[in-house]
Amino acid sequence: MNHSKRKEHNREQILEKGLELFVAQGYHATGLNGILSACQVPKGSFYNFFGSKEQFALEIIEHYHALEFDRWQQEFSLQQGPLFEKMRTVLEQEVNRLEKEPGHRGCLLANFAGEVGNATEAFRLAIQQATQQVIDSISNDFATCRAQGSLRDDIAPQVLAQLFWDSWQGALLRMKVERSGAPLRAVIDIFWRHILPPQQKEHFHAD
Amino acid sequence: MNHSKRKEHNREQILEKGLELFVAQGYHATGLNGILSACQVPKGSFYNFFGSKEQFALEIIEHYHALEFDRWQQEFSLQQGPLFEKMRTVLEQEVNRLEKEPGHRGCLLANFAGEVGNATEAFRLAIQQATQQVIDSISNDFATCRAQGSLRDDIAPQVLAQLFWDSWQGALLRMKVERSGAPLRAVIDIFWRHILPPQQKEHFHAD
Repeated sequence: MNHSKRKEHNREQILEKGLELFVAQGYHATGLNGILSACQVPKGSFYNFFGSKEQFALEIIEHYHALEFDRWQQEFSLQQGPLFEKMRTVLEQEVNRLEKEPGHRGCLLANFAGEVGNATEAFRLAIQQATQQVIDSISNDFATCRAQGSLRDDIAPQVLAQLFWDSWQGALLRMKVERSGAPLRAVIDIFWRHILPPQQKEHFHAD
Repeated sequence: MNHSKRKEHNREQILEKGLELFVAQGYHATGLNGILSACQVPKGSFYNFFGSKEQFALEIIEHYHALEFDRWQQEFSLQQGPLFEKMRTVLEQEVNRLEKEPGHRGCLLANFAGEVGNATEAFRLAIQQATQQVIDSISNDFATCRAQGSLRDDIAPQVLAQLFWDSWQGALLRMKVERSGAPLRAVIDIFWRHILPPQQKEHFHAD
């Protein structure tokens, strides 16, 4: 491993550890000294890598987002069948995973939005951008489901994707305080059984 | 004003100021010195009143909850017409109010759930209890709407109330990062137009 490769390796490890600490404890409750000792990295190296604690957190938002995207794509690639059913299966697996995490720590984006969502303009924009990318991705999948006839066609996929995201984030907060995946399971169930499928139409029997 | 009355007055003022600071900045970013100087109260008096910063925050969760309940009841009492429409009107007024607040600071319960939702058992229980009381109240109102024929009858009012709460909390987080009431307005619109009203039934034209 050459010098720059090892450096990149360290950088990645510090980001991973920072992600873990920030999701579990929040931004302000995670002190720089705690990060340094958890990663066994000297303060000078940390500042060389990231410049400041806020820059570090901003990079973790981006990093987390990329990690989640990769993981999600991988879970999807393991599923068979129509997209609508694949989405439900992957979400249910996600709840199983989240429930097993120590202390039901939840999701970095929901936790950070609550704590530092508008603390600085840089935080606000980083969280907004990551959120928007996930909503756009859900919206694209919903559009495919609609073309396949498994999604209602009276509400735009983008609007349904925003509502699903909001419900999911709210349920993540409730998971934390209830120490249970039940709120997330209820969101999946009501969306996949009642809200998302094609609806009976008013004019259905007026033809 | 006798001594104990003045003392109660001070206590109330410190809680109000603490609420303001915690909603705007979060728990950890609000230092005790900032609270003391904002309230012009000596440290000794603060500890006499509240014991610790965490106890203070716990009391504010309770206090905030009582304040919100009173405000909500008052808004309701000003409305005319069927409950289903009254709820929509009061929610729309709430969005107008939230949008005007400096920095779109959002809601104490959503922000605290994100930051300290499971930081300590006392925080977790206080947030869970306040959340459950609001959901129960929404659920009672939804049950009344259902009895009046304005709510769907194929999903329990409690389940609809939980979903509405989750969507609303998620939309509050998104309001913070988007600096706009649009996410909250979208939740009201889709619930009151599509999700909550009585649905066309499968058997409707099979009779």
